[in-house]
Amino acid sequence: MATPSNPIDEAVIVVMRSDSTRADVEHVAERLRDIGAEAHVSPGKHRTVVGAIGDRAAITQLPFEAFPGVERAVPVVSSFKFVSRDFQADDTIVDVGGVKVGGGNLAVIAGPCAVENRDQLFASAEAAKQGGANILRGDAFKPRTSPYSFQGLGEKGLELLTEARETFGMPFIAEVVDPRDVELVASYADLIRVGTRNMANFTLLSELGKQPKPVLLKRGFTATIEEWLNAAAEYIYKEGNHDVIMCERGIRTFETATRNTLDIAAVPVVKRLSHLPIVVDPSHSGGRRELVAPLTRAAIAVGADGFMIDVHADPETALVDGAQAIVPREFLELMETVRKLADVLGVTY
Amino acid sequence: MATPSNPIDEAVIVVMRSDSTRADVEHVAERLRDIGAEAHVSPGKHRTVVGAIGDRAAITQLPFEAFPGVERAVPVVSSFKFVSRDFQADDTIVDVGGVKVGGGNLAVIAGPCAVENRDQLFASAEAAKQGGANILRGDAFKPRTSPYSFQGLGEKGLELLTEARETFGMPFIAEVVDPRDVELVASYADLIRVGTRNMANFTLLSELGKQPKPVLLKRGFTATIEEWLNAAAEYIYKEGNHDVIMCERGIRTFETATRNTLDIAAVPVVKRLSHLPIVVDPSHSGGRRELVAPLTRAAIAVGADGFMIDVHADPETALVDGAQAIVPREFLELMETVRKLADVLGVTY
Amino acid sequence: MATPSNPIDEAVIVVMRSDSTRADVEHVAERLRDIGAEAHVSPGKHRTVVGAIGDRAAITQLPFEAFPGVERAVPVVSSFKFVSRDFQADDTIVDVGGVKVGGGNLAVIAGPCAVENRDQLFASAEAAKQGGANILRGDAFKPRTSPYSFQGLGEKGLELLTEARETFGMPFIAEVVDPRDVELVASYADLIRVGTRNMANFTLLSELGKQPKPVLLKRGFTATIEEWLNAAAEYIYKEGNHDVIMCERGIRTFETATRNTLDIAAVPVVKRLSHLPIVVDPSHSGGRRELVAPLTRAAIAVGADGFMIDVHADPETALVDGAQAIVPREFLELMETVRKLADVLGVTY
Amino acid sequence: MATPSNPIDEAVIVVMRSDSTRADVEHVAERLRDIGAEAHVSPGKHRTVVGAIGDRAAITQLPFEAFPGVERAVPVVSSFKFVSRDFQADDTIVDVGGVKVGGGNLAVIAGPCAVENRDQLFASAEAAKQGGANILRGDAFKPRTSPYSFQGLGEKGLELLTEARETFGMPFIAEVVDPRDVELVASYADLIRVGTRNMANFTLLSELGKQPKPVLLKRGFTATIEEWLNAAAEYIYKEGNHDVIMCERGIRTFETATRNTLDIAAVPVVKRLSHLPIVVDPSHSGGRRELVAPLTRAAIAVGADGFMIDVHADPETALVDGAQAIVPREFLELMETVRKLADVLGVTY
Repeated sequence: MATPSNPIDEAVIVVMRSDSTRADVEHVAERLRDIGAEAHVSPGKHRTVVGAIGDRAAITQLPFEAFPGVERAVPVVSSFKFVSRDFQADDTIVDVGGVKVGGGNLAVIAGPCAVENRDQLFASAEAAKQGGANILRGDAFKPRTSPYSFQGLGEKGLELLTEARETFGMPFIAEVVDPRDVELVASYADLIRVGTRNMANFTLLSELGKQPKPVLLKRGFTATIEEWLNAAAEYIYKEGNHDVIMCERGIRTFETATRNTLDIAAVPVVKRLSHLPIVVDPSHSGGRRELVAPLTRAAIAVGADGFMIDVHADPETALVDGAQAIVPREFLELMETVRKLADVLGVTY
Repeated sequence: MATPSNPIDEAVIVVMRSDSTRADVEHVAERLRDIGAEAHVSPGKHRTVVGAIGDRAAITQLPFEAFPGVERAVPVVSSFKFVSRDFQADDTIVDVGGVKVGGGNLAVIAGPCAVENRDQLFASAEAAKQGGANILRGDAFKPRTSPYSFQGLGEKGLELLTEARETFGMPFIAEVVDPRDVELVASYADLIRVGTRNMANFTLLSELGKQPKPVLLKRGFTATIEEWLNAAAEYIYKEGNHDVIMCERGIRTFETATRNTLDIAAVPVVKRLSHLPIVVDPSHSGGRRELVAPLTRAAIAVGADGFMIDVHADPETALVDGAQAIVPREFLELMETVRKLADVLGVTY
Repeated sequence: MATPSNPIDEAVIVVMRSDSTRADVEHVAERLRDIGAEAHVSPGKHRTVVGAIGDRAAITQLPFEAFPGVERAVPVVSSFKFVSRDFQADDTIVDVGGVKVGGGNLAVIAGPCAVENRDQLFASAEAAKQGGANILRGDAFKPRTSPYSFQGLGEKGLELLTEARETFGMPFIAEVVDPRDVELVASYADLIRVGTRNMANFTLLSELGKQPKPVLLKRGFTATIEEWLNAAAEYIYKEGNHDVIMCERGIRTFETATRNTLDIAAVPVVKRLSHLPIVVDPSHSGGRRELVAPLTRAAIAVGADGFMIDVHADPETALVDGAQAIVPREFLELMETVRKLADVLGVTY
Repeated sequence: MATPSNPIDEAVIVVMRSDSTRADVEHVAERLRDIGAEAHVSPGKHRTVVGAIGDRAAITQLPFEAFPGVERAVPVVSSFKFVSRDFQADDTIVDVGGVKVGGGNLAVIAGPCAVENRDQLFASAEAAKQGGANILRGDAFKPRTSPYSFQGLGEKGLELLTEARETFGMPFIAEVVDPRDVELVASYADLIRVGTRNMANFTLLSELGKQPKPVLLKRGFTATIEEWLNAAAEYIYKEGNHDVIMCERGIRTFETATRNTLDIAAVPVVKRLSHLPIVVDPSHSGGRRELVAPLTRAAIAVGADGFMIDVHADPETALVDGAQAIVPREFLELMETVRKLADVLGVTY
């Protein structure tokens, strides 16, 4: 788990104002040369453009737009180097407590949104197992928008999940929301989830980068794919933890008929740009029970490395997100279709 | 093609300020009764809420937020009545020059983005036919952002499309962008497309509502599903034209890796809310050739009534949107997978 | 009103994939040279970037992303050439029926949202005049989202506005929504407004570019400033009509406490990028009566060339947008503050 | 600093499906009565609406959309009770190391974005003092998107700020990004800033709610005003810390000419909804030096309780955000105008 070296250049295009002087252009070039970067000056009839290519850490420091004569500076090379296909051509395959995810191996993650008590967890876990899930979900710490909402069972929840793991023979995933809890959650869980609200919580990500359990990184509400890959690359992967699974869970748009807008194209885009596996969360993106099945089918068809579904034996009494959980019978039906689609599409499951 | 009557109420919830008086509440109720609507007053411990239910045309006129003591007014019943499942439970099946779309019948629309000349059109049309398309696409009028771009062949393009229809035995779809061209385009095309920029061009929509050819209505860049269904309902359907096909083509988000964000969940949402068929445009949403196949697979899997794909024999020389067109060989391969998926999912094609 | 020549280059940065070949790079350069453009090749250690500079119409045609080895193409020079400060350094001053707007001259546009009848119009117009407005607003054609809403009085409304112009000595502004109405509206109004929904209705804009009355162009719901300036430049200015006033009226965001989010920074940004005047609409952006005064103060303070306000003698009975209209007394109070601010800031009014 | 009691009800409107049964409606009502809430049933001709009013903690737990026959549930009363005008009518005035903020008292916060070294800090602090700032800004911990960027001096930076406070007689504000640093930062700073990325970091907010120093809470990139006020109310105020200042700093939109879109209307909206003071950050919203002055003028004119500006003696060498810092001379000029505007508008400064 050593930190890889830095082979990829950063490129920034500096567009000069039409009234910039030759001295302004030379000043930009000089500042670039000072830090060991290359400056390619392209004079147009009315505007000059300077292409800056060089070491990322150094280039990022230069406040080009504060230089005289500069109109704007546009970064052109995506920057998530360690997780890019340029850096590693082969798919990363993440081992989650013995279950392989990525490289054609499908993760089927199912279970209740939150662990409420032993009976509720075990009923969901049994349904997950029967349907063919290979990873159990269930949270012990819930970062709720409203403090009046159920906040999770804490360590007691992790103990119940551990017991369920033994009973049903499935590794489990649990969320962490506070950097001070990373060690605790990592001591129990097989896969640690970073929720949407924390995608840019660099303090938390850095802690996760320093421990050995794999991490599932959900996309931020309005994060671009580039920002999301950057968070994975720079704050988890770079700290030494290379076992990262991306999780598309919908982004914020003007649409209100769904809780979030599932960006289904993010799957092939991430797979083209990065070697990391990517799974889809059809429950939290749609936010409605009846959308889980169609969105799961779309996820398989588009080429995702898996999906994560809320299954609850009695959604109407669920303490968290009941409106989007499906019941065990619906999960079994859905998984039959999933198997047929996986077969047609040649996915190993 | 008579205009249906109006059986669905509009409901608005009027939330009073916490310092509103009894007279303020009574004033709201009175204004509602004046227009023949019902006013259900729910006094809370600190706030009163008035539920207003009644005739839509009348309720929409009341500027509740200008009334004394009113905090805000929230409409709660979706309004696209004529195209809603409440209004008609069965799927609408649209007849496009003999091809049925909706109700389990798949539309496979393929061809070049714009008609450039006879050879280009016929090469694409032949590939579309071979791959199994049942509707030909090809535009004669192009509403381009930049006026320097190719603007289409006009009526000459429509004549070439008509010739291709005879040659390959496929009805065709073409776009209209100016209300003054509706009659001309309708005299040639089997299906008339309203582009994204014109989804809220009510002048254009009204003209289309008054003519007999079916209309494919693309979703606006940032339109919600409700706004989109409203445009279909109120400006096309209500004018008397009931043959409307919805087309999801991606919405504007902060993501820039794709041209737009395909809202794949819009398909099951529209099918739940409305009886109209809905197809997906994987070419314009992704904006990149390599995304066409995965997004088409997702469209079929999620339950769309069809899809529309740019196929061009030589994308590099295309005058419009070359970056997102696939070549004939790619189309043939994709259609093989589509057939297998349709088979597994029980879609008639 | 001749069309100006084209002195500004378009620049596009073509970023090659990391696995692109020398032949791929050469192919891009060759295609550029074929159209008479310059190709500046900047080879980095891992990626090559090609700067393409040349004639805009030609460069816009090339589908770079369909070329082999191309990762993406980024346009870097803003394109609204005719309306840019590069093209004309001095402020454009638009003459609206004898009232100067721009270059330090403040437009105070006030009146009812829609002309409902003679009494309503004249009561508002009188208040506008008393408060110190110099242009009267009032629409005869209203493009409403709902067809059940009042659609305007049509030509009768324009006649009433003409009568009010004579009575109060103020030129007037009115909206046009259909290209077939341009001639009619232009025959009455002193300033023609293009509404938010029509900012990208290029058919309508082209018609306005061909007639002599000045045009006030509202910003589209989600248009960037660049897209907005482009619409002004390419479809109105380029057709020969150089009298364009930009109108910032709020953009669509996730915020729902206001109808739209007034982008107050658009004022200094437009003034830096363009020579056209820019006014602010505090009524439609905020959408609430109590926001009109603070937003108008902000507009003056930020440097706008004017503002446009809905004033209605009896907002509660207004047929259109009553919730955001202020009453005559509020307008008078606001204008007192405006005069003091204009004085402190050195604005001629 | 006791936690206030809970006097405000939550109201939710439950819209039933058109095919819901009487039993479905009764079930909703029963579940509400079970938790002690009121259920107001409003039967329409085609749809029934249930108004649910009652204790917030209880109502929030009910997953209405998982109940049979429910179409959707819409919360209608804004929820940030402790910080609402309903809860406290008078303006909160926050004491920042002796400087009053709110209730007509203007905060002028100025200084470098990050503390880089003693000379840089003291040069900026001197300029801030001369211009008339009453609170010094300067960060010791910087949460940067890129880990290659300068991350701040840590405790050493806080010591330098403390020294500057003594020298120039100005209290200072500093950011905290990790819950583990709250105690440390609170032991030095007079006002603690929560950055945009951390507005929804409830772990961090809770820690700040438990300590006595006032908190300045920046708005999240895409947070609505309601979400922002909720974060202040529920995670800081409710924990016992009532000294909260809101800071509008721009939201994410499609506009790219500015770093963020300053939502200037948020100022009057927050002042109407809440008793907390609100200041504006013109530096980080605009992201460009030339926008600082106009946006600051707009902030004063719209009624903000202050503003926060990056002032740097040599922006071109700044390690953080140099492109948006203004130089001491520009700050002095701007403050002259600010004083005149404050005078016209009757603001105490």
